[in-house]
Amino acid sequence: MTAKRVAIIGAGPSGMAQMRAFQSAHQNGEEIPEIVCFEKQSNWGGLWNYTWRTGLDAHGEPVHCSMYRYLWSNGPKEGLEFADYSFEEHFGKQIASYPPRAVLFDYIVGRVEKAGIRDWIRFNSPIRWVRYNEAEENFTITVHDQIKDTTYEEDFDYVICASGHFSTPNVPEYDGFESFNGRILHAHDFRDAREFEGKDILVVGASYSAEDIGSQCWKYGAKSVTSSYRTAPMGFEWPDNWDEVPALERVDEKTAYFKDGTSRDVDAIILCTGYKHFFNYLPDDLRLKTANRLASSDLYKGVVFVKNTKMFYIGMQDQWFTFNMFDAQAWWVRDAIMGKLQVPTDMKTLTDDVKERMEREEASDDVKYAIQYQGDYIKELIAETDYPSFDVDGACAAFFAWKQHKMDDIMAFRDNSYRSVITNTMAPVHHTPWKDALDDSLEVYLQN
Amino acid sequence: MTAKRVAIIGAGPSGMAQMRAFQSAHQNGEEIPEIVCFEKQSNWGGLWNYTWRTGLDAHGEPVHCSMYRYLWSNGPKEGLEFADYSFEEHFGKQIASYPPRAVLFDYIVGRVEKAGIRDWIRFNSPIRWVRYNEAEENFTITVHDQIKDTTYEEDFDYVICASGHFSTPNVPEYDGFESFNGRILHAHDFRDAREFEGKDILVVGASYSAEDIGSQCWKYGAKSVTSSYRTAPMGFEWPDNWDEVPALERVDEKTAYFKDGTSRDVDAIILCTGYKHFFNYLPDDLRLKTANRLASSDLYKGVVFVKNTKMFYIGMQDQWFTFNMFDAQAWWVRDAIMGKLQVPTDMKTLTDDVKERMEREEASDDVKYAIQYQGDYIKELIAETDYPSFDVDGACAAFFAWKQHKMDDIMAFRDNSYRSVITNTMAPVHHTPWKDALDDSLEVYLQN
Ligand SMILES: Cc1cc2nc3c(=O)[nH]c(=O)nc-3n(C[C@H](O)[C@H](O)[C@H](O)COP(=O)(O)OP(=O)(O)OC[C@H]3O[C@@H](n4cnc5c(N)ncnc54)[C@H](O)[C@@H]3O)c2cc1C
Ligand SMILES: Cc1cc2nc3c(=O)[nH]c(=O)nc-3n(C[C@H](O)[C@H](O)[C@H](O)COP(=O)(O)OP(=O)(O)OC[C@H]3O[C@@H](n4cnc5c(N)ncnc54)[C@H](O)[C@@H]3O)c2cc1C
Ligand SMILES: NC(=O)c1ccc[n+]([C@@H]2O[C@H](COP(=O)([O-])OP(=O)(O)OC[C@H]3O[C@@H](n4cnc5c(N)ncnc54)[C@H](OP(=O)(O)O)[C@@H]3O)[C@@H](O)[C@H]2O)c1
Ligand SMILES: NC(=O)c1ccc[n+]([C@@H]2O[C@H](COP(=O)([O-])OP(=O)(O)OC[C@H]3O[C@@H](n4cnc5c(N)ncnc54)[C@H](OP(=O)(O)O)[C@@H]3O)[C@@H](O)[C@H]2O)c1
Repeated sequence: MTAKRVAIIGAGPSGMAQMRAFQSAHQNGEEIPEIVCFEKQSNWGGLWNYTWRTGLDAHGEPVHCSMYRYLWSNGPKEGLEFADYSFEEHFGKQIASYPPRAVLFDYIVGRVEKAGIRDWIRFNSPIRWVRYNEAEENFTITVHDQIKDTTYEEDFDYVICASGHFSTPNVPEYDGFESFNGRILHAHDFRDAREFEGKDILVVGASYSAEDIGSQCWKYGAKSVTSSYRTAPMGFEWPDNWDEVPALERVDEKTAYFKDGTSRDVDAIILCTGYKHFFNYLPDDLRLKTANRLASSDLYKGVVFVKNTKMFYIGMQDQWFTFNMFDAQAWWVRDAIMGKLQVPTDMKTLTDDVKERMEREEASDDVKYAIQYQGDYIKELIAETDYPSFDVDGACAAFFAWKQHKMDDIMAFRDNSYRSVITNTMAPVHHTPWKDALDDSLEVYLQN
Repeated sequence: MTAKRVAIIGAGPSGMAQMRAFQSAHQNGEEIPEIVCFEKQSNWGGLWNYTWRTGLDAHGEPVHCSMYRYLWSNGPKEGLEFADYSFEEHFGKQIASYPPRAVLFDYIVGRVEKAGIRDWIRFNSPIRWVRYNEAEENFTITVHDQIKDTTYEEDFDYVICASGHFSTPNVPEYDGFESFNGRILHAHDFRDAREFEGKDILVVGASYSAEDIGSQCWKYGAKSVTSSYRTAPMGFEWPDNWDEVPALERVDEKTAYFKDGTSRDVDAIILCTGYKHFFNYLPDDLRLKTANRLASSDLYKGVVFVKNTKMFYIGMQDQWFTFNMFDAQAWWVRDAIMGKLQVPTDMKTLTDDVKERMEREEASDDVKYAIQYQGDYIKELIAETDYPSFDVDGACAAFFAWKQHKMDDIMAFRDNSYRSVITNTMAPVHHTPWKDALDDSLEVYLQN
């Protein structure tokens, strides 16, 4: 292989997995291409890199972070553990199953610090534009260096897009929003639940953000939580001061009106209405357009862009599995770029693969089916690379148990613990029930 | 003149002035270039186009609007009246001197509706990138058509940047912000003062936003307002529940600590710390870098970019004068593009002009000097075009009176009225004192 140049866009968990994949090949004595990772933030960690800022950041770019204070993992850590770097290796002991943000941040950063790849990253470097040069068969990337406040262009042979898809909010408008006398915000801009202490809040949506932000507000003293679903209720057994109601229709001053004819007065409206795949730096011929689903559009093997097979995407699927799936993808993409795996050259093979994945996803609405589907995807990818094989079905089983624990008691599911499929040890039960654990710092969490 | 193509970026007051300038030449029988205005919002009006949204808009772009509910003009309308379209012509009568946002929006839109130029504008079209082609001596503009969700390129002979500079917030960080237990927002994201009813708020900054947002909150029932200055206090006679204190040093949970050793508990922090000139669609060779001042860097005559004289900027100065200054600039730029005015070709003449303007601005710190300086700039420009001449010194006099009225009573200065320098009629005194006028709709305001 002659010296090739690979650009990775984003140093979140997906971009970090991609760098670790190349570094691991290098460590094994293989010759790897030159890697440059462009990251618009001043630190790595992607969404896990917390900031109090909302809207635009210190440099005028959209704030990437959608996380908030007091956020704990919403799924068991046993479902996302790296196969090449266990929680026990990182923390020197097994830890409880639903770590707060700071603890998971520490874990994912630990692996790449050990790999020594931080200097592959150009921080404070938002990508402005990417174009493919047909003649040269390469890409020209335009970057803004925020520190020098200058823009420049550089050429690459491959581009791996790992800029995430849970940062650009999907923000619907309802009648009367223009004259609502309180705060309206999207989950993306939610930061400190204490702001809503003593308040009546309305949460719009019926998925993870609605459940978790409503739960935070409840935990930190909101007077009442009303959550409004469009398609189907979440259906948990909510606390007494939490009501789940049908779709919002309109608001008038401080009153919200719902589809069932009921209404209530609220102080704030939190739109937990999901996110958009958004790439304002990509032209049509390179830009992924997909719904948030398990089988993404236009990605062969879930990673190769069918319209240009030198362009890859990591982490663009909806996620049951996260870090370990990004690893499976990153190792696969590494081997495709290094020529160890063959990417088909004919469009039909590429698109047939996408079609098959979509049809298989759509074959059932069952949650367990969906979890197993994504587990099978991981198995498929890791079978083709040297990523350490692990008990993916065991991880699926942890997710199945988690689902049941949520149905049993939505405000206590995080008090359960599971067995690691990497080290085969059981996680301890956390020292404090989640609902009473108001301090979510790393120091306090690790006092087990 | 052979058929030239001119791109205008932004359909705010500056872009609208530029279109009106060309349309007025056309109306006088002159042959004008083809004009295409690209506007990222779905309507014209720029900052005056109100939205309840904050952060990112429905298409994932930064929300442009920095205005808020209940915003009234902070200067007398007699200082900004169009010389070719008076308030009396628009409203059929003279109106009071400090119109709310909706009334001024109606006025500025009225002129361009009459001109019939809406179809020059491509709405929902954020500019992604602009480059200058040395060989062809023209520009290639990359645009995102949000409706078709497609990007495309188009070539132009001239580019006029009118995308404003009060939309990208300057957001400083203070120690403890990361763990403050309330809301922290920039003025750019402030929307409805009623959200802060009964609250203790801290306003950081000592300029127009600090003064006006603090006043709104006071008017709509905040429990207390604390405003903190870095350099010098605003120094007005504030109401009893408003304290002006020295610079903020840090916050801890809900307590804010100031430079004079005092502290106080606050529920929310509103950063009224100004804005940045921000052009994420421009490469170094076309991008203006300037402080927010009366003599902008690198702009000959305040409008021609010295590094590329086919590139123009409108409205990039700090603003005493607004709409009439944009007009003066737009008429001048029009005539430069149409070859009726000569732009120097040697760099020294261009930069000497900039230097002279800067030195003259820096010659005095006096407020009246600054107002007169910008008035003189308008006089200089309109003397060279067919823009209707008007009594600019009379408009300066209105600003001088306004300054005094603010010192007399900061919560009542908007109850004064002034004489129009366009129609020479006196504005009526408004039917309700500003502090009691809670309804700021156009209908109610015009009931004089
Ligand atoms: C509120 C919330 C909570 C979550 N909680 C969990 C959880 O508990 N457990 C879990 O496993 N998963 C969770 N997730 C899922 C999350 O998607 C993944 O954990 C993970 O962060 C995805 O990694 P990524 O690298 O693909 O994307 P991201 O983490 O989004 O990282 C993308 C990176 O790209 C950078 N970038 C973006 N645009 C540009 C540009 N133009 N130029 C340069 N760089 C750019 C960003 O700054 C960022 O660093 C959560 C998601 C959300 C929104
Ligand atoms: C809070 C506040 C209150 C104010 N109050 C007053 C007042 O009372 N009286 C007064 O005279 N002035 C006031 N001003 C000053 C204001 O700057 C002017 O009135 C005027 O809006 C400036 O016009 P503009 O066209 O230069 O910029 P803007 O009004 O900012 O318009 C710029 C336009 O460019 C568009 N744009 C931006 N980026 C792109 C892109 N990439 N692609 C395509 N389009 C783009 C925007 O959507 C917008 O429509 C106020 C300013 C602020 C911030
Ligand atoms: N660690 C944590 O605790 C945590 C917390 C929050 C989020 N997350 C993660 O963040 C990611 C995103 O989750 P999410 O909940 O933000 O998004 P999501 O899963 O995509 O769900 C979006 C929700 O918004 C609703 N919706 C969309 N448009 C709407 C509209 N116009 N009106 C009303 N409702 C509308 C959808 O309803 P329909 O069902 O009707 O389409 C759905 O309920 C997930 O990966 C999740 O795991 C994790
Ligand atoms: N119609 C209306 O009623 C209305 C309302 C609001 C705004 N506006 C307009 O909006 C425009 C912008 O006004 P603006 O007040 O937002 O901006 P501005 O005039 O630029 O003022 C910025 C203020 O922030 C302070 N500041 C900057 N950085 C700071 C930091 N790191 N820490 C502390 N303070 C800091 C500055 O203090 P220093 O003096 O120390 O530098 C200054 O007081 C003006 O044209 C104004 O007329 C109009």
